[in-house]
Amino acid sequence: MTENTVLITGAGGWLGGLLARALIEDARSPGVELILVDIVEPSAPPYAAVVTLKADLTDPAAVDAMFNTKYGTPDTIYCLHGIMSRGSEDNFDLGLKINVDSVRAVIDAARRYGESTGQLIKFIFASSLAVYGGPLPHVVTPETIATPQGAYGMSKLVNELFINEYTRRGLIDGRILRLPTIVVRPGPPAAATSAFVSGIIREPLQGLPTTCPIGDGPSSPALDLALWLASPETTVANLVHARRVPPAAFAPHTRVVCLPGFTATVREELAALAEVAGAGALALVRFEDDATNRRVVSSWPARFDNAYALGLGFVVNEGGMVPIVRRFREQLAAGVV
Amino acid sequence: MTENTVLITGAGGWLGGLLARALIEDARSPGVELILVDIVEPSAPPYAAVVTLKADLTDPAAVDAMFNTKYGTPDTIYCLHGIMSRGSEDNFDLGLKINVDSVRAVIDAARRYGESTGQLIKFIFASSLAVYGGPLPHVVTPETIATPQGAYGMSKLVNELFINEYTRRGLIDGRILRLPTIVVRPGPPAAATSAFVSGIIREPLQGLPTTCPIGDGPSSPALDLALWLASPETTVANLVHARRVPPAAFAPHTRVVCLPGFTATVREELAALAEVAGAGALALVRFEDDATNRRVVSSWPARFDNAYALGLGFVVNEGGMVPIVRRFREQLAAGVV
Repeated sequence: MTENTVLITGAGGWLGGLLARALIEDARSPGVELILVDIVEPSAPPYAAVVTLKADLTDPAAVDAMFNTKYGTPDTIYCLHGIMSRGSEDNFDLGLKINVDSVRAVIDAARRYGESTGQLIKFIFASSLAVYGGPLPHVVTPETIATPQGAYGMSKLVNELFINEYTRRGLIDGRILRLPTIVVRPGPPAAATSAFVSGIIREPLQGLPTTCPIGDGPSSPALDLALWLASPETTVANLVHARRVPPAAFAPHTRVVCLPGFTATVREELAALAEVAGAGALALVRFEDDATNRRVVSSWPARFDNAYALGLGFVVNEGGMVPIVRRFREQLAAGVV
Repeated sequence: MTENTVLITGAGGWLGGLLARALIEDARSPGVELILVDIVEPSAPPYAAVVTLKADLTDPAAVDAMFNTKYGTPDTIYCLHGIMSRGSEDNFDLGLKINVDSVRAVIDAARRYGESTGQLIKFIFASSLAVYGGPLPHVVTPETIATPQGAYGMSKLVNELFINEYTRRGLIDGRILRLPTIVVRPGPPAAATSAFVSGIIREPLQGLPTTCPIGDGPSSPALDLALWLASPETTVANLVHARRVPPAAFAPHTRVVCLPGFTATVREELAALAEVAGAGALALVRFEDDATNRRVVSSWPARFDNAYALGLGFVVNEGGMVPIVRRFREQLAAGVV
């Protein structure tokens, strides 16, 4: 095992790409070697020590191939690949195959290759607040039960159980991060139930119309639906940090960490859009209530106790939606998103 | 689909055998047809409408065979098969194959055959309090988080997540029963971490020595370890009842039910043994502290709020350990255990 080799699955995705660049720039890991894997070959960042791999991780040979590049066995795996929430809700069987089975195959490979090199591979898993559902307390704590009400959250929770158990048995060094909803995601709308959370900011800032699937108009009570959010920069910083948390810092019985976030309602998002970009931008938001979408998003919690995660050194956005909308507008103007 | 056909996996086990006899005797299901399946061919009860099947459920063909006996597709499946707790802790990979993968195969088959007959198959799953672990409240409620600290509990919880999700999607009609530790189990010691809970009663009542893996002597403070218990009769009555609970009676977000139980410490068990069978019986208990065993059993909760389960019509033992020890002694004398 090399000491500074990182494998990222789902590296072709937007978050995986951001993470790769952040790892390259991370002053604590100079010379990091990156193995970037996705179902379509990820684009390589402008950096020497990187291999890219096109791999269908439902194929065991493809899973093995990730561990047999010129960089050998990675010391850290970021497991980010998967079908997003709405996609796995609509394509249940495909979702199980990818979001459950292929993740388990990667966990198993991390165990095997870790055993063969005599070191614990850090297995950093992007989980989600979609694991929660049903009646919830006003504020979610590490003691709150997770009862998924959708295929995506169910699959994430199954993966978590394997990672916790493999970690407990000393087969991998798991770190499970339940990510808040990320706002603002750039690019075209994704197949995520939460895609609108970014869409209602991103599209209007570019003068484009967008559809809000929550509520039937700008004064709909449904817009009081609260969301649990983090910016892309904060999320990536926390993914990078996850590699550095000493094992002993985690609670002894679980490796689950709900990454820090903040609460905003859909209405507050729209108010931030209006504050930053004016009423004209707001007028580009059309409302078309989608019951399935609203049901799933409403089942997610919107308030968490950040104390445990902050104590582990993870970071949180300050100032709510306005600075996030402002920053995204600046990035659009600079052509970097 | 026939209206009164029950498939039991793990039917060769002690609990499966008791359940089969109880279903035959259940006045609410006269003429029940039984499909009894296990890795070794289960012995058939003296009853006409029964088929027995030897099946390794890690083989997909064997799973299909269960649905293609002369009784066709069952309306109810009791999924009881699996490797017990200590066995799956010591043989991790075999445990995953049987306790996770083969159960999922049966869930999937219930979905497929239910779809092909146009009816929801009731899928009754024997789960366990071993799903719990880590810091726990004094009394476990339906809102208490399950954080397994062993392979057995992890596997059960993974199965639960699939059953809940398949139920939510209308693919099966799942009923998940988290069983208390059953006392007194007859027969030879089982490969369960909790086997001693019955052993320290069963063996001495027959004049046989037994080993208690908790504590190093009769005055050890370790004997204050509390257990969550139910008798075989109560457990079987609750398994039979699970088939009769109307779907709408369950909480809308989960099919998990912690079956009612009562609390007793190892010390209280031994006191009940002494009360019923005298000091001579008690003297047959040797103490040999087993750290692994004690760690796993200590991670299980010992006090639950029974209200939800009782509200669903499930029943509970009254009077603690003494009537249970007395009844087991009577059954021994009658030669029925």
